[in-house]
Amino acid sequence: MIEMTNEEKKYLLSTIRSINDFPKPGIVFRDITTLLNNKDAFNFLMDHLEKRYKSYNLDFITGIESRGFIFGAALASRLRLPFVPIRKPKKLPYITISQKYSLEYGVDEIEIHIDAFSSVKDAKVLLVDDLIATGGTAKASVELINQTNATCVEACFLIDLKDLNGANLVSKLTPLYSILEV
Amino acid sequence: MIEMTNEEKKYLLSTIRSINDFPKPGIVFRDITTLLNNKDAFNFLMDHLEKRYKSYNLDFITGIESRGFIFGAALASRLRLPFVPIRKPKKLPYITISQKYSLEYGVDEIEIHIDAFSSVKDAKVLLVDDLIATGGTAKASVELINQTNATCVEACFLIDLKDLNGANLVSKLTPLYSILEV
Repeated sequence: MIEMTNEEKKYLLSTIRSINDFPKPGIVFRDITTLLNNKDAFNFLMDHLEKRYKSYNLDFITGIESRGFIFGAALASRLRLPFVPIRKPKKLPYITISQKYSLEYGVDEIEIHIDAFSSVKDAKVLLVDDLIATGGTAKASVELINQTNATCVEACFLIDLKDLNGANLVSKLTPLYSILEV
Repeated sequence: MIEMTNEEKKYLLSTIRSINDFPKPGIVFRDITTLLNNKDAFNFLMDHLEKRYKSYNLDFITGIESRGFIFGAALASRLRLPFVPIRKPKKLPYITISQKYSLEYGVDEIEIHIDAFSSVKDAKVLLVDDLIATGGTAKASVELINQTNATCVEACFLIDLKDLNGANLVSKLTPLYSILEV
């Protein structure tokens, strides 16, 4: 199983900008746009993901709206695989299945097209997002995939905010790979 | 300049699903998720875009939230180029520049990080989105890019809803390439 060395992780982390008090006071926001617009860093990350996942015999890559679209579609294109978006409510135009999940205050929901994986029997799906925090969205996404005819064979995150314990929640449902823990 | 043949366009169009009355009555929505989750179609499109743009000497690919992230990041990854997201208001955490544009009813706004292209002097940028309709978002996006130190050298769309004349608006500012006209 291909993983990054500590030196490689340190390099990649150094390309991510930290923004204090965004989106609200007390939060340190991890700004991945400085990794994306850094040619060397983005290529380094994509080369790593391509190497890791080329042996998984995946059928589809899914990404969670919006930043998961960036990493998920970039990886799908590298691996010559199809891409399936998991979206916020009312964005997908065809018949969807949806899954609610809890936020700090209230409830949110995500959706997938019911026929997203129907072209492949027992499809093997990789879930991609930029970051896992409390894990609510990721857990709901794995559940959505597994409610179709497909199976989520791994969930991959660039960053795991480990104090929030999202990885524990999600790894009960599927293997989890997070590149950077902060 | 590499363009698709009519036969190739016909094939690609056949992989896009039309949904009547979405998001509101009377609208025929072009559902590109059926192209994305079709391995052959998605690869065919990405191979085409890679071939066309590899000779452009681009420095960055930008994509407009959210579906532009999918095609833009997929192309950036293929061409080993960095990716810059153009986002809805209050999503980007660092200093932004923003541009308002008119909707059917009211005004909307998009943003880019002020330092998005600052690593390359006089950067050449390709703008990517899935669809051009009235062209308001696309025009605002080109203006945003050109307000930085960079230049938008082409705007690329999978689908042009030609009755809405967005291409006329945008092509005053930058060369425009739309693969499918519907």
